[in-house]
Amino acid sequence: MAKDMTLWWGSGSPPCWRVLIALEEKNLQGYNQKLLSFEKGEHKSKEVMDVNPRGQLPAFKFGDIVINESYGACFFLESKFKSQGTKLIPDCAGSDNNCALIALIMQRVFEGNTLHQKMADVFMYNRRVPENERHESAFKRLKETLTTELQMWEGHLKKTPGGFLAGENFSMADVIVFPSVALLLRMGLSEDKYPKLAEYYKKLQGRPSVKATWPPTWKETPGQELLKDI
Amino acid sequence: MAKDMTLWWGSGSPPCWRVLIALEEKNLQGYNQKLLSFEKGEHKSKEVMDVNPRGQLPAFKFGDIVINESYGACFFLESKFKSQGTKLIPDCAGSDNNCALIALIMQRVFEGNTLHQKMADVFMYNRRVPENERHESAFKRLKETLTTELQMWEGHLKKTPGGFLAGENFSMADVIVFPSVALLLRMGLSEDKYPKLAEYYKKLQGRPSVKATWPPTWKETPGQELLKDI
Repeated sequence: MAKDMTLWWGSGSPPCWRVLIALEEKNLQGYNQKLLSFEKGEHKSKEVMDVNPRGQLPAFKFGDIVINESYGACFFLESKFKSQGTKLIPDCAGSDNNCALIALIMQRVFEGNTLHQKMADVFMYNRRVPENERHESAFKRLKETLTTELQMWEGHLKKTPGGFLAGENFSMADVIVFPSVALLLRMGLSEDKYPKLAEYYKKLQGRPSVKATWPPTWKETPGQELLKDI
Repeated sequence: MAKDMTLWWGSGSPPCWRVLIALEEKNLQGYNQKLLSFEKGEHKSKEVMDVNPRGQLPAFKFGDIVINESYGACFFLESKFKSQGTKLIPDCAGSDNNCALIALIMQRVFEGNTLHQKMADVFMYNRRVPENERHESAFKRLKETLTTELQMWEGHLKKTPGGFLAGENFSMADVIVFPSVALLLRMGLSEDKYPKLAEYYKKLQGRPSVKATWPPTWKETPGQELLKDI
């Protein structure tokens, strides 16, 4: 089954990493994969554009089916391989406990989009905004917004014992959000200021699906300090 | 069952509207609802903050379960009431046709987030960016980015016959994306330049779930022209 799948991905990109982790958790090793370089612009190559006209990674094919949105690919894999590998979203019908758990997973999964966006806003400011339009005040505001967001996630982790984002078991919330947390730490987030996020990061580092998909470029180069004052 | 639910919402907000439509489609009429005013800052009231610490609408409770993220609430309702009302996401296991359909629905659902973000970037520029940080060039770039995005959706609708976003049947893709399309038209999007989006908008206007949840403030005030040149 996995042989029918092809993933085009880039190292260190949280959207790509989500799909890589989901494939591992669903025991779909053996899929075709092409590791491309953002720096070389390979995400804009004809090969990628033919699959994903947005020219973004991940791009993902399963037989004739194309599903490039990372959230979509993860939800699709869970739906298609429901009873294979890790159950990332429990079934709801009939059990009220599971309903509360699904709600929490969904809440964290989609809050994860806000976390990712606020992180990307800080990372991309100097890269995307032309120099003559940049303002120190705007950059400072983006960093403050990210700080508020991170404090919210510290609170989430304090309120949810068990070490995973939705409690005692690894779930879709971790598939989606862990790569963003890892990137935050990689970019210099202070472990002293965000002890719960740091603890979460360390706990999941040892998980086989995470180890097997660790960004290859991160193994070769040191972390950065962009977020050390956040 | 619906009596256990409470939705706090604001008129014309696509995230709120998604949940309103999902509740109708799943035959959950009769829930408690509180229509609040963004203008009066009621989304920052203690009542809302107690349910949604982000101070955003929608806020949604179902018994003791809180699920405020609009995508999350819609997915949760579909999961909990799978066989009640409209089936918004088909089951995948066993049928390859359904798998292709789920993938298409997921792809459009999550691309819908990009559409919404690019629309919001244009709407919010003058409201959110302090005057001394504004640049005509930045605003123009946001409008161009939205134009490119809209052309992509015109293409989606051309390629998917059947009149709905994922083909012949109303699905989660329509629940999520229709409110953004309606807001675009309300803000002056040209029906001549975007004929497929306009056709889609008109088709869904007559759907009972959409009619029943049409933003009350839109009935009282005329549309705007912000997007007429997009």
